[in-house]
Amino acid sequence: MARRQAKRLSLSEYLDGIRAGNRMMLSKAITLVESRLASDRKLANELIEACLPFTGQSYRLGITGVPGVGKSTLIDTFGFRLAEQGHKVAVLAIDPSSQLSKGSILGDKTRMHQLAHHPAAYVRPSPTAGSLGGVARQTRETLLLCEAAGYDTIIVETVGVGQSETAVHGMVDFFLLLALPNAGDDLQGIKKGVMEMADALLINKADGPFLPKARQAKANYSQAMRLFPQKESNWKPQIHLVSALENTGLDQVQQMLETYRSSMEQNGFWQKRRSQQAQQWMYDAIRQGLEDQFFNHPAIRERLVELQQLVLEQKRAPIQVAEELLQAWRDQ
Amino acid sequence: MARRQAKRLSLSEYLDGIRAGNRMMLSKAITLVESRLASDRKLANELIEACLPFTGQSYRLGITGVPGVGKSTLIDTFGFRLAEQGHKVAVLAIDPSSQLSKGSILGDKTRMHQLAHHPAAYVRPSPTAGSLGGVARQTRETLLLCEAAGYDTIIVETVGVGQSETAVHGMVDFFLLLALPNAGDDLQGIKKGVMEMADALLINKADGPFLPKARQAKANYSQAMRLFPQKESNWKPQIHLVSALENTGLDQVQQMLETYRSSMEQNGFWQKRRSQQAQQWMYDAIRQGLEDQFFNHPAIRERLVELQQLVLEQKRAPIQVAEELLQAWRDQ
Repeated sequence: MARRQAKRLSLSEYLDGIRAGNRMMLSKAITLVESRLASDRKLANELIEACLPFTGQSYRLGITGVPGVGKSTLIDTFGFRLAEQGHKVAVLAIDPSSQLSKGSILGDKTRMHQLAHHPAAYVRPSPTAGSLGGVARQTRETLLLCEAAGYDTIIVETVGVGQSETAVHGMVDFFLLLALPNAGDDLQGIKKGVMEMADALLINKADGPFLPKARQAKANYSQAMRLFPQKESNWKPQIHLVSALENTGLDQVQQMLETYRSSMEQNGFWQKRRSQQAQQWMYDAIRQGLEDQFFNHPAIRERLVELQQLVLEQKRAPIQVAEELLQAWRDQ
Repeated sequence: MARRQAKRLSLSEYLDGIRAGNRMMLSKAITLVESRLASDRKLANELIEACLPFTGQSYRLGITGVPGVGKSTLIDTFGFRLAEQGHKVAVLAIDPSSQLSKGSILGDKTRMHQLAHHPAAYVRPSPTAGSLGGVARQTRETLLLCEAAGYDTIIVETVGVGQSETAVHGMVDFFLLLALPNAGDDLQGIKKGVMEMADALLINKADGPFLPKARQAKANYSQAMRLFPQKESNWKPQIHLVSALENTGLDQVQQMLETYRSSMEQNGFWQKRRSQQAQQWMYDAIRQGLEDQFFNHPAIRERLVELQQLVLEQKRAPIQVAEELLQAWRDQ
């Protein structure tokens, strides 16, 4: 207990460490925002608040794609390239553990050899605990901590199943979808909703014998994407052929990202998207807070145990029980 | 207003109509559970409660698969087959509108010609409104109404993006995944989490020139599925080749469903899964209720408008604002 208290850092220790670019302190702060202890949560909120004035300047880049498409290799290559150019690059991941198998599939750091060892890069293993809502909150807060620590490019990767794409899209400026050069077979694999969210599609592994297939895939995707509704930003999603292996196509990707930022800053959509994301974040925080209040309330906890048992035994109807608990909550 | 009141049905009118198998009344009751009006909501809860004693006897079957895999045709063929055998078949769909494009893509009834016109079948167009949580609740309640109306086979189809599979899995007894005979290319398209949830995989369009490919796909999938963790039910997921077009393989599917039910009833998992689902439903209803209470509270609504504007203008931090509103909620 004494040891525990001795280890506990103050708000200003965290803030000063982060602002000084101290990676150890950044890691500790991220662990803090990932904590489920109420006391940690309070300090974490204060820390995020204190960091806010130093956030917002980075390029927030989301990357998604089905397993096997080469996300890690691309992030490794592209991130290293940016780091060599003088950027400070942080890589985060959203990986809500599979509801059935639990736990993360791969350690992130082992997947990005070059980048993980670059002094200007920070690769954070994804939080493995909890619901998508919880993981999304943690990742959003981690993103802010990284910005406050001076990272100017934050890459958020989806590792998990379905829902993660929407969560990542909700926290980034630009949403990149990776696909394989399977001449459009992939079209069926990538959900329409995810393709609609993409600001660009990269056809990866477009090298050697796969190049003709990749070109064909580009044509197929172009056709499919023409049918999508116009984006609010008026941005027309681009398709590029890339090879993380041969390091080709990444010039165009970087150029596109720069073009996007400047034109979106000009038409006001850059700020508008961030405003909307802030609003979404507020609603998410409210929902999370409501649940925390409810489920941690002693009177509710006690009755919940008993009533839940009756629901499990199918002696009481779920809706009725929920209504009874909510009524108890209103009355207390 | 007078007209509106004249149309309003009583609890017993709904219940009697449903129990008598009156399809018009069933449709009206489903419209009631889909309503967002507080007064409708109260009546809907009472109706669900009143229906509960008459529910639980059906086979609840979930069907998912990427767009283009032939879900509608398979449901049409398989549902018609069951209806001809004397079963009463209801088809529901979960289609949380795409966050970007809104609205349902296709009318369900036009997709299932045979089944929609069978006197023993009821095809309900999916609710197009709202969040996944809302749509999932409505579909669960609709499922109960259909059971109370005497339907013994309820097919719940996913039409939407990613998250819907988890929602459907959470309300059915058996979860079927459809795939195409693409010799395993598909493996990359179907999320691992979804494959893990499946109780069976049907390789559709296994006819004519696609048959060899379908056999190869079956082998590939078998291999992939062998790596999945053992199911709690001890059920070993099966893979079948089917053709909705040529009406082949459906004997085996029906046989499998019957085997599943009898062995799960024997080992107790049938009831256990339903108990767990009831528990999940309770938690979902609590969450929904908390949000309704919070966001519909006059004092909160008023402050929310003002504070949300400050968040949109990025003058206040989302977390801090959420905290302030939650505090106001606690204090009232």
